[in-house]
Amino acid sequence: MRMLDLILKKRDGGALTEGEIRFFVDGVVRGTIPDYQVSAFLMAVYFRGMTEAEVAALTEAMRTSGEVLDLSVVPGVKVDKHSTGGVGDKTTLVALPLAAAVGVKAPKMSGRGLGHTGGTIDKLEAIPGFRTALDREAFLRQVDAVGFAVVGQTEGLVPADKALYALRDVTGTVDSIPLIASSIMSKKLAAGADAIVLDVKVGRGAFMPDEASARALAEAMIAIGRRLGKRTHAILTAMDEPLGREVGNANEVAEAIRVLRGEGPEDVEEVAVVVAAEMVLLAGLAPDRAAAVAAVREALADGRGLGAFRAFVAAQGGDPAVVDAPEAVLPRPHHRAAVVAWADGVVTALDARAVGEAAMRAGAGRATKEAAIDLAAGVHLRKKTGEVVRRGEVLADVLASRPIPEDAVLRLREAYALGETAEDAGLAGRAAGGPASKVLAILDG
Amino acid sequence: MRMLDLILKKRDGGALTEGEIRFFVDGVVRGTIPDYQVSAFLMAVYFRGMTEAEVAALTEAMRTSGEVLDLSVVPGVKVDKHSTGGVGDKTTLVALPLAAAVGVKAPKMSGRGLGHTGGTIDKLEAIPGFRTALDREAFLRQVDAVGFAVVGQTEGLVPADKALYALRDVTGTVDSIPLIASSIMSKKLAAGADAIVLDVKVGRGAFMPDEASARALAEAMIAIGRRLGKRTHAILTAMDEPLGREVGNANEVAEAIRVLRGEGPEDVEEVAVVVAAEMVLLAGLAPDRAAAVAAVREALADGRGLGAFRAFVAAQGGDPAVVDAPEAVLPRPHHRAAVVAWADGVVTALDARAVGEAAMRAGAGRATKEAAIDLAAGVHLRKKTGEVVRRGEVLADVLASRPIPEDAVLRLREAYALGETAEDAGLAGRAAGGPASKVLAILDG
Repeated sequence: MRMLDLILKKRDGGALTEGEIRFFVDGVVRGTIPDYQVSAFLMAVYFRGMTEAEVAALTEAMRTSGEVLDLSVVPGVKVDKHSTGGVGDKTTLVALPLAAAVGVKAPKMSGRGLGHTGGTIDKLEAIPGFRTALDREAFLRQVDAVGFAVVGQTEGLVPADKALYALRDVTGTVDSIPLIASSIMSKKLAAGADAIVLDVKVGRGAFMPDEASARALAEAMIAIGRRLGKRTHAILTAMDEPLGREVGNANEVAEAIRVLRGEGPEDVEEVAVVVAAEMVLLAGLAPDRAAAVAAVREALADGRGLGAFRAFVAAQGGDPAVVDAPEAVLPRPHHRAAVVAWADGVVTALDARAVGEAAMRAGAGRATKEAAIDLAAGVHLRKKTGEVVRRGEVLADVLASRPIPEDAVLRLREAYALGETAEDAGLAGRAAGGPASKVLAILDG
Repeated sequence: MRMLDLILKKRDGGALTEGEIRFFVDGVVRGTIPDYQVSAFLMAVYFRGMTEAEVAALTEAMRTSGEVLDLSVVPGVKVDKHSTGGVGDKTTLVALPLAAAVGVKAPKMSGRGLGHTGGTIDKLEAIPGFRTALDREAFLRQVDAVGFAVVGQTEGLVPADKALYALRDVTGTVDSIPLIASSIMSKKLAAGADAIVLDVKVGRGAFMPDEASARALAEAMIAIGRRLGKRTHAILTAMDEPLGREVGNANEVAEAIRVLRGEGPEDVEEVAVVVAAEMVLLAGLAPDRAAAVAAVREALADGRGLGAFRAFVAAQGGDPAVVDAPEAVLPRPHHRAAVVAWADGVVTALDARAVGEAAMRAGAGRATKEAAIDLAAGVHLRKKTGEVVRRGEVLADVLASRPIPEDAVLRLREAYALGETAEDAGLAGRAAGGPASKVLAILDG
């Protein structure tokens, strides 16, 4: 088999066989196929796409390219959850305890933040003592005992994805649905869960800017799950403005705890409840979606969700007092700079990407993988889309341990658009005067 | 400037600026752009194409990437000629002496054969003593004195093409019209002539399989010439079956000499006369095409073309006796194997590619650049398309200095299709019972 023939076949619109795809992935991992052939092939895939069968074969070949987790010692249906990445997205910190409180077993590997989006692992590290690296046995034991655990991704998982992503990143082949879908799903499948809930973000702050492309990605991933025998549901959620009012690390943990206490922003609660309900549904713990939502809402209302979060923090070595007094336990920002309204009016748009970039510039995120972050840094949004403001009123604050860099404030100011009337806000795609639903669709294959 | 941005721009259908294209070519030559980015870009070009302005900028950047010849010491209009490569294509050996006999100055760099197509440099080396490497001064002096010279391509010419072609060859990005056109034209322009005649081959034995793609390539090259100030004419000629009856090296030289004597096959004569006439026209030595054709035909009829060939051979150190007794001077094959007709009928098709591959297997060509060739090896076609054959009659012979390999004979047999009637031959796209014109079109911008 020659890589050149595979390139030509894809270039000319053909579909590769399972054997050909395995040859490709194998060659990528072993380094026997030169990078210039891999990148030419990836660009051909960008233009020609892949059939469902090809994407499934690619995902399977990637999945088995390295270590594969075996979760079978944990009894019950294990359900994983994945978000395609957003700004202020603390959904995992709320949805997993809620799902666990209803009985779901959720073994979760998470990533670190990069660019304008944050990562759950960074957020959790804001809790003093919290360990994001557990050995295999401790991880499985915790999933069984507490219902969920969140750890950083194991190094040896899906080396094919590491190699392919590094090349895609520098050859203009990142935004290809077959390549994104196989990258995400290969890692989820290697992590060993029986079912998967995907939170596919849509909008200016997300990887997928519009609902059509987000839906296509979601459907591609559901198809992979179907072909490879893992039930997969996807939720499309809006990411034009950030989720909640906190963007950063420590402040997002505090907001997640407020949501679990029933005191958090509606939008975070809504998304977390829907994600948790899909996990409950896939775990077979509710007869239908309505019952799953009701069970999750009950766990939220009676404090079992909060209890699960407390047990989780304690199990991973974190200070459980964070649940009762987040502000006292979490690192606090010593500096603060405000963005004020330059006119009377209504917030007509709040650009999630700009907010994420402002938080990153303040120190909450990293521009390169190696950069260190300031866990206390972030953005606090006092006003969101649809809200009335008066000239001079504070729209949002930039927070940090160090003096606030000017460019963070400038970027945050750019995130806001003000209009004269509530109707102007309607132009941004939501009903004025109240928060619109963040859940755009639920796709269950 | 970042190569990634150029890849994304092209991938998304944009047109690169002259500066961006120069950055790309520069980076390719210096090795500062990694191969995996170059190949991803080339694949994006394959799918998105290039505007006329982009192709011209690419050609110009490639042209100036290395040595550029200055022919200005030779007075008059210098006209170059290029063929996209065919089987049995000895046109240069006939057209250049004819054009020179009418007064054209034709400085020509030629290549060696590769795969199923032959190269003029290999053919000329079949003449004892012939030197295909001349120093700059000797080359220019000969063009001035004899009217033409044929040498191997200078090493330092267009290094960008060498680098790009090596990568295209292994990444499925060879058959892209902007890339082919810029590759050919950058070399022709670096070689310094004032005007260019292109012989674009069309058909099963050619790089361009159909007239539409051949015409698109020809038009792309003419557009480059127009934008870069070099008048360029293109002739589309048929290459379904080989040109002439000889395919190889020594035997093609002998056939070219027969044509110059007025004793050669009609098809070779036709193509050579048309090519030579375009050269005469571009040199300004005839008022119109008809006059140019008449002048060339006169030079053929009165032996001036043959005389120019004799002077050319002598000037480059070859034995001029080849002109009078080719068979006595040229290397002779000591082995011969025949392919015989398996039925009574008519030759309905004679696949040029298969004939070229048979000749290569006999030793006349090389599968890899490093391979040595047998100058006496080749194929002699006794029957061509439209000709009547009787069962048992010899269709063609394979020739070589060594015993004939069986696979050469088998491949040659596969080249022939026999039908029952002359009408069957019409299916192969030509009138039965006589040779059809090989000249499909002349494009003069």
